[in-house]
Amino acid sequence: MEESKQNSQPRPFILITNDDGYEAKGINCLVDMLADMADLLVVAPDGPRSAQSKAITVVTPLRVRKLEERPGLTRYSCNGTPTDCVKIALYSLVYRKPDLLLAGINHGSNSSSNVIYSGTVGAVMEGCTEQFPAIAFSLDSHAPDADFEPCRTVVRKMVDRVLREGLPKRVCLNVNFPVREHFRGVRVVRQCDGRWMERFEKHQDPAGHDYYWLTGDFVNFEPDADDTDEWAMRNGYVSVVPCQVDLTHYGSIQQLKDWNEDE
Amino acid sequence: MEESKQNSQPRPFILITNDDGYEAKGINCLVDMLADMADLLVVAPDGPRSAQSKAITVVTPLRVRKLEERPGLTRYSCNGTPTDCVKIALYSLVYRKPDLLLAGINHGSNSSSNVIYSGTVGAVMEGCTEQFPAIAFSLDSHAPDADFEPCRTVVRKMVDRVLREGLPKRVCLNVNFPVREHFRGVRVVRQCDGRWMERFEKHQDPAGHDYYWLTGDFVNFEPDADDTDEWAMRNGYVSVVPCQVDLTHYGSIQQLKDWNEDE
Repeated sequence: MEESKQNSQPRPFILITNDDGYEAKGINCLVDMLADMADLLVVAPDGPRSAQSKAITVVTPLRVRKLEERPGLTRYSCNGTPTDCVKIALYSLVYRKPDLLLAGINHGSNSSSNVIYSGTVGAVMEGCTEQFPAIAFSLDSHAPDADFEPCRTVVRKMVDRVLREGLPKRVCLNVNFPVREHFRGVRVVRQCDGRWMERFEKHQDPAGHDYYWLTGDFVNFEPDADDTDEWAMRNGYVSVVPCQVDLTHYGSIQQLKDWNEDE
Repeated sequence: MEESKQNSQPRPFILITNDDGYEAKGINCLVDMLADMADLLVVAPDGPRSAQSKAITVVTPLRVRKLEERPGLTRYSCNGTPTDCVKIALYSLVYRKPDLLLAGINHGSNSSSNVIYSGTVGAVMEGCTEQFPAIAFSLDSHAPDADFEPCRTVVRKMVDRVLREGLPKRVCLNVNFPVREHFRGVRVVRQCDGRWMERFEKHQDPAGHDYYWLTGDFVNFEPDADDTDEWAMRNGYVSVVPCQVDLTHYGSIQQLKDWNEDE
């Protein structure tokens, strides 16, 4: 009886993207971690799209390429941004609405103010907009051959939980893993106040024309706070920040109310 | 006495960018509206960069081109995104920290969920990150020859006010103008809950390969609410939404606290 009931329910259906491109180790490890838990549709950029935030492509057409199709796993690449990948998957490629949207596992952390530039977090914010659960996973290592294996247990547990329980309405999760063999645990925290102190390296090309590369160092403006994503990661915890797409700063509506006027 | 005091204060210094590119009518109208009020530095994309959100360019180098330099106005174009324009201005082009950052006037509104994709709003969010005041201006018309003149009085008044009073810490403003000869007034409101119901048009190129264009219709999920940016614009008011870069959904931290665990 129990078995036939299970058989009558379709397997969960998970849409996966990233911003490092379909060939990156992180996204392929994520697929491997979840292959027995759900039917997976991967739609990922055809190359690196880091720091693309929630950019969408409006001045050039999008193209998709089917890379693989086998029971439980279909993979496409797309010439657009991570958010484009989610949109084209939802509107042109899926046979049913996904139960969950995942992005990652990103090569490099997406904590503090990095979330506003991150293509990984940008992609899952599309889950909020489309009103289904979404999780961004990032590991605090940019190494192309980074070891994602320590993340496996936590990833599977979180995915299973969200598939069963869902998430608060219009909220997605931004999950960051420190580089450790064993995590000290999981902490639900807030986005740290910090930013990159940036500069541009100026170079000259062979024709004598200047060009610029952005570089810089991250500075944590609240290093002593023990309720931030930076704190959690620096202390060996997996950090979980619930994120929203409503950018309104509600406290300021009252503060600015004397801007209201009638002509 | 008063006069010599005024003379000893430098004119305000305003950095201006947009996402429609330096040739767009909207940014050039904005420059015209403010030329007598401040020294202006324009650093704008060398072509359209709509829907670039807060994307930054990390895999190709940036280049800038000086277009014009005369007393009170210097203009550059840049091959990057709106956020790149702000960063390269701040770190490589300015002689002193700007008193204000402006983006626009955008051809097309940036209200409701559009803010998360908008390059115009993305650029001014950099003001929050860099901790100085910033305002995004958008007109609810995509016409290349849209009439921005009705915005002049409100733009000047807002800029003057923010130069004198500043803005709440880590808050920038998203201002939208309806298309009208006379506005009914100004309303400080919240970001409306709405989104684009999207679809992709599928076409074939001459070689027989499929390509896709994103299109869709905007749906307001709370058409009866009278405290949103959509409501303000639809009712003839200039809408002002205070925006923040902290994406944390604080209410959910408590709700998800049983995710916390120690190994």
